[in-house]
Amino acid sequence: MRVGLLTGGGDVPGLNAAIRAVVKRGEGEHGHSIVGFRNGWRGVVDGDVQPLTRGHIRNVLSVGGTLLGTARYHPHSSDGGLDAVMATLEAERIEALICIGGDGTLHAASKVAEAGVKIVAIPKTIDNDVWGTDRSIGFDSAVSIATEAVDRIHTTAESHNRVMIVEVMGRTAGWIAVTAGIAGGAELVLAPEDPFDIEKVVRFLKHRHRAHASFSIVVVAEGAVPAEGTAMHYETQVGKFGEIVAGAIGERLKAEIEARTGFDTRVTVLGHTQRGGVPTPTDRILGSRFGVAAIDAITRGESNVMTALRGEEVVLVPLSEVAGKVKHVPASLLDVARALA
Amino acid sequence: MRVGLLTGGGDVPGLNAAIRAVVKRGEGEHGHSIVGFRNGWRGVVDGDVQPLTRGHIRNVLSVGGTLLGTARYHPHSSDGGLDAVMATLEAERIEALICIGGDGTLHAASKVAEAGVKIVAIPKTIDNDVWGTDRSIGFDSAVSIATEAVDRIHTTAESHNRVMIVEVMGRTAGWIAVTAGIAGGAELVLAPEDPFDIEKVVRFLKHRHRAHASFSIVVVAEGAVPAEGTAMHYETQVGKFGEIVAGAIGERLKAEIEARTGFDTRVTVLGHTQRGGVPTPTDRILGSRFGVAAIDAITRGESNVMTALRGEEVVLVPLSEVAGKVKHVPASLLDVARALA
Amino acid sequence: MRVGLLTGGGDVPGLNAAIRAVVKRGEGEHGHSIVGFRNGWRGVVDGDVQPLTRGHIRNVLSVGGTLLGTARYHPHSSDGGLDAVMATLEAERIEALICIGGDGTLHAASKVAEAGVKIVAIPKTIDNDVWGTDRSIGFDSAVSIATEAVDRIHTTAESHNRVMIVEVMGRTAGWIAVTAGIAGGAELVLAPEDPFDIEKVVRFLKHRHRAHASFSIVVVAEGAVPAEGTAMHYETQVGKFGEIVAGAIGERLKAEIEARTGFDTRVTVLGHTQRGGVPTPTDRILGSRFGVAAIDAITRGESNVMTALRGEEVVLVPLSEVAGKVKHVPASLLDVARALA
Amino acid sequence: MRVGLLTGGGDVPGLNAAIRAVVKRGEGEHGHSIVGFRNGWRGVVDGDVQPLTRGHIRNVLSVGGTLLGTARYHPHSSDGGLDAVMATLEAERIEALICIGGDGTLHAASKVAEAGVKIVAIPKTIDNDVWGTDRSIGFDSAVSIATEAVDRIHTTAESHNRVMIVEVMGRTAGWIAVTAGIAGGAELVLAPEDPFDIEKVVRFLKHRHRAHASFSIVVVAEGAVPAEGTAMHYETQVGKFGEIVAGAIGERLKAEIEARTGFDTRVTVLGHTQRGGVPTPTDRILGSRFGVAAIDAITRGESNVMTALRGEEVVLVPLSEVAGKVKHVPASLLDVARALA
Repeated sequence: MRVGLLTGGGDVPGLNAAIRAVVKRGEGEHGHSIVGFRNGWRGVVDGDVQPLTRGHIRNVLSVGGTLLGTARYHPHSSDGGLDAVMATLEAERIEALICIGGDGTLHAASKVAEAGVKIVAIPKTIDNDVWGTDRSIGFDSAVSIATEAVDRIHTTAESHNRVMIVEVMGRTAGWIAVTAGIAGGAELVLAPEDPFDIEKVVRFLKHRHRAHASFSIVVVAEGAVPAEGTAMHYETQVGKFGEIVAGAIGERLKAEIEARTGFDTRVTVLGHTQRGGVPTPTDRILGSRFGVAAIDAITRGESNVMTALRGEEVVLVPLSEVAGKVKHVPASLLDVARALA
Repeated sequence: MRVGLLTGGGDVPGLNAAIRAVVKRGEGEHGHSIVGFRNGWRGVVDGDVQPLTRGHIRNVLSVGGTLLGTARYHPHSSDGGLDAVMATLEAERIEALICIGGDGTLHAASKVAEAGVKIVAIPKTIDNDVWGTDRSIGFDSAVSIATEAVDRIHTTAESHNRVMIVEVMGRTAGWIAVTAGIAGGAELVLAPEDPFDIEKVVRFLKHRHRAHASFSIVVVAEGAVPAEGTAMHYETQVGKFGEIVAGAIGERLKAEIEARTGFDTRVTVLGHTQRGGVPTPTDRILGSRFGVAAIDAITRGESNVMTALRGEEVVLVPLSEVAGKVKHVPASLLDVARALA
Repeated sequence: MRVGLLTGGGDVPGLNAAIRAVVKRGEGEHGHSIVGFRNGWRGVVDGDVQPLTRGHIRNVLSVGGTLLGTARYHPHSSDGGLDAVMATLEAERIEALICIGGDGTLHAASKVAEAGVKIVAIPKTIDNDVWGTDRSIGFDSAVSIATEAVDRIHTTAESHNRVMIVEVMGRTAGWIAVTAGIAGGAELVLAPEDPFDIEKVVRFLKHRHRAHASFSIVVVAEGAVPAEGTAMHYETQVGKFGEIVAGAIGERLKAEIEARTGFDTRVTVLGHTQRGGVPTPTDRILGSRFGVAAIDAITRGESNVMTALRGEEVVLVPLSEVAGKVKHVPASLLDVARALA
Repeated sequence: MRVGLLTGGGDVPGLNAAIRAVVKRGEGEHGHSIVGFRNGWRGVVDGDVQPLTRGHIRNVLSVGGTLLGTARYHPHSSDGGLDAVMATLEAERIEALICIGGDGTLHAASKVAEAGVKIVAIPKTIDNDVWGTDRSIGFDSAVSIATEAVDRIHTTAESHNRVMIVEVMGRTAGWIAVTAGIAGGAELVLAPEDPFDIEKVVRFLKHRHRAHASFSIVVVAEGAVPAEGTAMHYETQVGKFGEIVAGAIGERLKAEIEARTGFDTRVTVLGHTQRGGVPTPTDRILGSRFGVAAIDAITRGESNVMTALRGEEVVLVPLSEVAGKVKHVPASLLDVARALA
């Protein structure tokens, strides 16, 4: 078989592990030819292909990013995009396509699948908000980086009477904020799943600083919002590519806290460092398992499914069940973050 | 309530996160008094207690080891041990006991539970072989350290025509070997779950080195054994405390490979570094969640259960279902390790 | 002897190593009593002391920050400050004082020395701009963190056609920018020592992106400035404590580059993460050596000197030669940064 | 000019930074052609060359090992070796040769230089024992890895009443042992520069464990030896390639300590992990600076010199002054290790 492979959306650590696994298993055991498309769906539309053999995947397991490149482009959103996809797949004689991506890429994949292409998807996003799987590739690495940052800010915060705000990514979900907040021992975690009341936040900080502490660390998700009917009015700020504007909620929160408490308050916006660097072992293993499962599924003739982690096993779920849904942080985990503040 | 807390067996990163969570949730929200026993069951037998309040758990979240100390001692194995346990618990007016430990500690816990003590257990072991839970505290940190070592040996191995053997821990299970082997891109992983044939190992190495490669990395679990009826005879070597002797299988394998191939072969035994150091975020979160779940269970009146991770949720499983069983690496994961060699 | 000890200015990784060394050597070998002042000069003025014995310095070697606390306060700048210092030192019968700090703390130290107090100073600053020593405590850790951030941004930048700006600390010196720029393989490094011409910067980026590259990483020191007479006008923005405003030059540069090239440009401001976390071995060793050298100097009766690293040896330099001077990045190192762009 | 480049001896992190710097500066600024020899002197003898252009050095800065490969082979030690070297250099029209290596490679370089070849050497060795330079490439990374291991063993050792021995590399010098011992807070450091008395070692351990401590960490250099006339007799064990046998002194020390104290004693031999992995920023900068300095020296017509770090500057020293000498740990640093035990 000739099998296409693309990575779409923002890059994350662990993508290369998945690519490597598809090639090793696909070429080495099943005898398939693996064809890579460069820069996500863009490369399918443009016919920008590269062969992927064992020689191309040497020494990539521990390298972040994606050797195929990626882009935030969706063929169904532009005129003739889907036609160009079909034309390229036919010209390249691609019998099935593996799409590694997050929300946007998976949505595009479901559109392309509707047009008759056999697709197996692999979920990746540092935001961990893909429905149907315990984990997506990249999340563990992002949490590792965010926790390290909170650890660092801890040692420096302890010497000064300050409120330190750390703003992390996550889109409309609070996965990175909640997990890095718990792991880093933050005093307060603000996540989209639990809109905050600025007056309660301020009361907590005042109480804490009056009581005994000389500092507080607040981890805030970029998508965190105030609860309706509370004292602070704010709407999530969105950039030209639909992404949440880095630093917006962090800076606004700093202004509110300083105005209401007088405490010296500093913001650190982790930004792009969260999606770079050496993947954690967990992300390499997840990428490897998903890659093997995807090419095995294609070999068995399955299509329009997504690989998913459920407990200790990798399973397949219908793509149609996944697309368009957001997986939020469960109440039990929000509760642990609150309990340990 | 007065709730006792102990950590038993070998220390692992993440124990302090669990202790901290029990204290923060238990004292802060439920109003319990938490009493720590020093050095595992030894401290219960000897009445070696220390109070555990919020002051004792500051800045411990990111510190490896256990602030309570630990020991490999089981009260039911010595005369009068159980009686001494009961006497101490009565003297200290302990109404329930949280035991954090692996196989041995959990077995002791089930014996003490049979004597009428209310117990909630928390699984920890770098070996990840506790039955009934997806993960035990410490495993993720150990995998992280072992993978880092394989990464390092990779860069140095590539310059020399060598076979590099990396021996990792894991007792009779291959969890660390298989996961670090996949994550580190080892050429060969030898795990107890899949006894090896030395002649196949040698054939693989000869083929690989003849074909193109100038080096091979073999990750071997300390509990790996040759398959019955194959050319190599070897029994796992056990030390005075029942632990597997570090370096035994690694050195033996080196001798066999050198004798059969003539390849320069080196062994690295990771040893105690695998259980030390800063816990990964995953282990801090797991420890925190298990600690909260354990003290919540006790507060609700539950007993003789163990906290367990199942997918994204923490659940409780009966201690009696867990004790005495070993969780082995599933075939699907062994298959991924094989596929990516 | 009774010897006082304080840490002043911003905290950095490695301070605890120096404190530990002073106590271990001072108490253990010389038989001195070490008295700690809390929160820098503030604690001397307020008489806020704590004894420092071997019990206080356990397990601090690998912990960032300072166990004594710190503050940005200079006694000679406020009425009666120096008198209060003298009164406290007399009341506590302090015979000599070890001051660990950067520019501001050392300047204060020289003022207090002029008033007759025996002082030995130890240089610390992530900015590495203390005159007279090859290295100050904290610099190596900051470079390590900044390089790691550049590494991470590298893997993510490679997938998108972007200019990534990383703003690092350093005050009026470019040490962190130049070293992290070289170590991280930045395409361009902007340091205060070499004022930039925005038109040349833009020409370089356009040429590079036209030629072959799909991304560029620009590391900019917070104190970088445009050369006089060039197209961009900008003055370093200073906050209420005299510190350079984080993000100011980074955001301004982004605006200039986007306006002149149209390239999608992103800024990451490393901020406080640069001064936190586990000290590198180099900073622990430097802190340890400086601590031993300082207490040895006091024991020998020397005063009004600063410990300094010169090649492989620790020496003493007169405090008067050091105070008020800034050590800048040498031309040879700027040249290496330029050569490897 | 056509300039040859080779890396010899054991591989270390930071070699690729030096190779990259030679190519970027040499090709990009001076217009030279850089010719790489594969596997050290072996490649010169065999005429095993590869061109080195900017395309070959992309993304290598943070990668350990050497992209040229390396070997422990010295042309002057085998019949016709030097003649083959001269023949290859002539055939390839090499006008000057940059040799990156340690003791053995530099010795070979001085022999080849005597035969009339223009050579500039760059010192690399994790052992830091090259004479004439403050630092050699690789040392900082090795110390970082060894310190991390000591840190990890610290947390696990604290829970058990044990003596933990950590054996590190260093050949006949104690650089890694002394620096990682200081940085990791070891209780005892045994270095070749200061032969030990086993009875004093045992007295120290007994005193410490009687007094208060429940554990001790002993860092021992592979080349450490007992002092003459003391109770323990031992000679450094040497393998077939002249290297010191890993584990020999560690295991012997364990046997002596257990026999004399009865304390449970464990050995961890760090082995090959010490020379692998991602280079520290310090090693990347040192490699970059040495690479630039070497190609600049060749361009200026200098030869038979070695690049060397002296304080903050890179200088050139005559190769003849360096070859055959070993740089040992200075007394001042040994004294700091002793003081902080």
